[in-house]
Amino acid sequence: MDLETLKSLAVKAEAKIVLLVLDGLGGLPREPGGSTALEAARTQNLDALAAQGVTGLVEPVGPGITPGSGPGHLALFGYDPLTYRIGRGVLEALGIDLELTPRDVAARGNFCTLDGAGRITDRRAGRLSTERCVELSGLLDTIQVEGVEVIVRPVKEHRFVVLFRGEGLSDQLTESDPQRVGEAPLKVEAKIPEAERAAGLINGFIEKARTLLTEKHPANMILLRGLARHPNLPTFQELYQLRAAAIAVYPMYRGLGKLAGMEALETGASVREEFEVLREHWQKYDFFYVHVKGTDTAGEDGNFPAKVAVIEEVDRGLPTLLALRPDVLVVTGDHSTPTVLQAHSWHPVPVLLSARWCRPDGVQEFSERGCLQGGLGRLRGKEILPLALAHALHLVKFGA
Amino acid sequence: MDLETLKSLAVKAEAKIVLLVLDGLGGLPREPGGSTALEAARTQNLDALAAQGVTGLVEPVGPGITPGSGPGHLALFGYDPLTYRIGRGVLEALGIDLELTPRDVAARGNFCTLDGAGRITDRRAGRLSTERCVELSGLLDTIQVEGVEVIVRPVKEHRFVVLFRGEGLSDQLTESDPQRVGEAPLKVEAKIPEAERAAGLINGFIEKARTLLTEKHPANMILLRGLARHPNLPTFQELYQLRAAAIAVYPMYRGLGKLAGMEALETGASVREEFEVLREHWQKYDFFYVHVKGTDTAGEDGNFPAKVAVIEEVDRGLPTLLALRPDVLVVTGDHSTPTVLQAHSWHPVPVLLSARWCRPDGVQEFSERGCLQGGLGRLRGKEILPLALAHALHLVKFGA
Repeated sequence: MDLETLKSLAVKAEAKIVLLVLDGLGGLPREPGGSTALEAARTQNLDALAAQGVTGLVEPVGPGITPGSGPGHLALFGYDPLTYRIGRGVLEALGIDLELTPRDVAARGNFCTLDGAGRITDRRAGRLSTERCVELSGLLDTIQVEGVEVIVRPVKEHRFVVLFRGEGLSDQLTESDPQRVGEAPLKVEAKIPEAERAAGLINGFIEKARTLLTEKHPANMILLRGLARHPNLPTFQELYQLRAAAIAVYPMYRGLGKLAGMEALETGASVREEFEVLREHWQKYDFFYVHVKGTDTAGEDGNFPAKVAVIEEVDRGLPTLLALRPDVLVVTGDHSTPTVLQAHSWHPVPVLLSARWCRPDGVQEFSERGCLQGGLGRLRGKEILPLALAHALHLVKFGA
Repeated sequence: MDLETLKSLAVKAEAKIVLLVLDGLGGLPREPGGSTALEAARTQNLDALAAQGVTGLVEPVGPGITPGSGPGHLALFGYDPLTYRIGRGVLEALGIDLELTPRDVAARGNFCTLDGAGRITDRRAGRLSTERCVELSGLLDTIQVEGVEVIVRPVKEHRFVVLFRGEGLSDQLTESDPQRVGEAPLKVEAKIPEAERAAGLINGFIEKARTLLTEKHPANMILLRGLARHPNLPTFQELYQLRAAAIAVYPMYRGLGKLAGMEALETGASVREEFEVLREHWQKYDFFYVHVKGTDTAGEDGNFPAKVAVIEEVDRGLPTLLALRPDVLVVTGDHSTPTVLQAHSWHPVPVLLSARWCRPDGVQEFSERGCLQGGLGRLRGKEILPLALAHALHLVKFGA
């Protein structure tokens, strides 16, 4: 269902919806015949919710496709991740909690080293110290370019972010980074005529950076990649008349929530603290996205017991959340991160939806194997939000 | 997922993938309460693969749609069969092992009989003998048409194939066969202005054929149908950097593999010989499509025991294949051919995927009923290839 149609069906409802995302939730058995982390974890509260509610398995993007965090979350927020693509520059900006507006083109920057002939000898400027990166980013931030506001912020080591803020900037641009040493940095070029102006402004910025950095060897030049506009998503407020909040510890996830029009709430780092923040703000919002990072971190580290422990921590914290009596609670992940792969994967992600109007499916356990029998069946990531809205009686009939 | 996006995710990997297609694999019980052929067959090797791997049911094109061999295979090769359509002329050419190039428009031809007034009295020229068809096709093959190369090859009885080979020929053309006796053959007409040139060339050929055949009653004219261009599929090499090979006995299936850029390997007719060819060429390719025709033939013949026997023959041969230790093995069909229908059908087709990174689903038997509980769920034909690539670690993350 396209967003325009969905929007036309959305009505106000007195209902609270919670989307609890355990990042990288899905997994694989540690050894043949073994359990996944979710199966191994003692999760009496999640199992009780699965028993009362309805479950299924989610393909965030599609069969065989391993989602990055951006597409995985966008899908859970109801946006088709193949239609709404978030560029690298934007994700990098979100990752340092940089406020993005719909007028911005963002880029990932590297400090690099040029030789006397203008050829790149090191694409990372000897992996600059973060202190030096902060200092030189401050220098670049002073650059003035006629017709556009330029904002430069350090990330880490040789990496920084640039925002070009102005009206009507296209991001249909090539990168200045040739991704090879021994070559000169490239001019940013317009892929479509409408992007000529942006290309000109950005090349102007790059030349000023070159001049400013002349004496700053080894960081005597910059390379820009992943030039991307803010995706200008229609917000939860516009689409569904929902006041939405994001409760997430890491800037990237707070930023992804903000792209959907959510307000990012301040929170401590533990699951308990996140649930406390939820409780404190319960009256002010209709929709809460709560992000738990630890499951993914444990998956990426290949740490099976740690992944089990985070899932159990969430389960122990759940009574705080359930005491608020949400009308709809969805628990799922933005992708799988099996500890045996130590990486995001393409495997479908367990989902449970608990609400008064669920059709029960006989599943008694929130697990990969349990959800295989679930009443939601196999569904795409973007289909979860319409289901949550429906169970909150937020959607009217389609057609008469 | 569109092919462009899939291509952007594909990377080289040291992995061998085998797609074993049992043509017309899916079936129906012979009598109410009975077993399908796959269920009745003793298949200890396939069942062991199902137990270790992951299973599901495939809709090659979509629910309720009975696929021809062309769309069924295209889907298994990852091409959306609703987007990439292979015309009848092309399939007919593939079926006689005629080498097709991206510059070709192919047509199915019939020899037919005209009366003195130029009206068709027999659309099949009295079902000409194949010998006569060979002779007259040779005659037509001598026709020269300015601006295009013409290749005519006999098929069987009254049927032949024509290829028109030249630059920029459109296939947006009507047919010359009115499909009724008592009418004159039609002019081939352009459906779009860009096809005017092709229409003119082809009508020129038809008039020369009429002249050549004047004295050849009852085969004194030809009718052309299914005018279709080579589909110009992006190849496995272009899309996925895969060196791909097709092992198939019948020209049609070898041809379908070639459309996807596969090299068609010479093979004997038995399953055992096909698996031997696989073993001999194991080092040279990354992807092997192996086609077994007997399941479909038995289905079309309504011969339940024969279908069971072919499936058991494949199962007995499997150890040869498994000894090669493919990284990913997919076993499925291009459509169902229930013996009780004696025809292709719309019923979903069992699929099993065996690989190191499968998530087990508890299914113990490769069968229609077993696969209903499978971890791949219900999927479209075109989703199988991305899954195979994913399990071979051939696809990087989508988005960051």
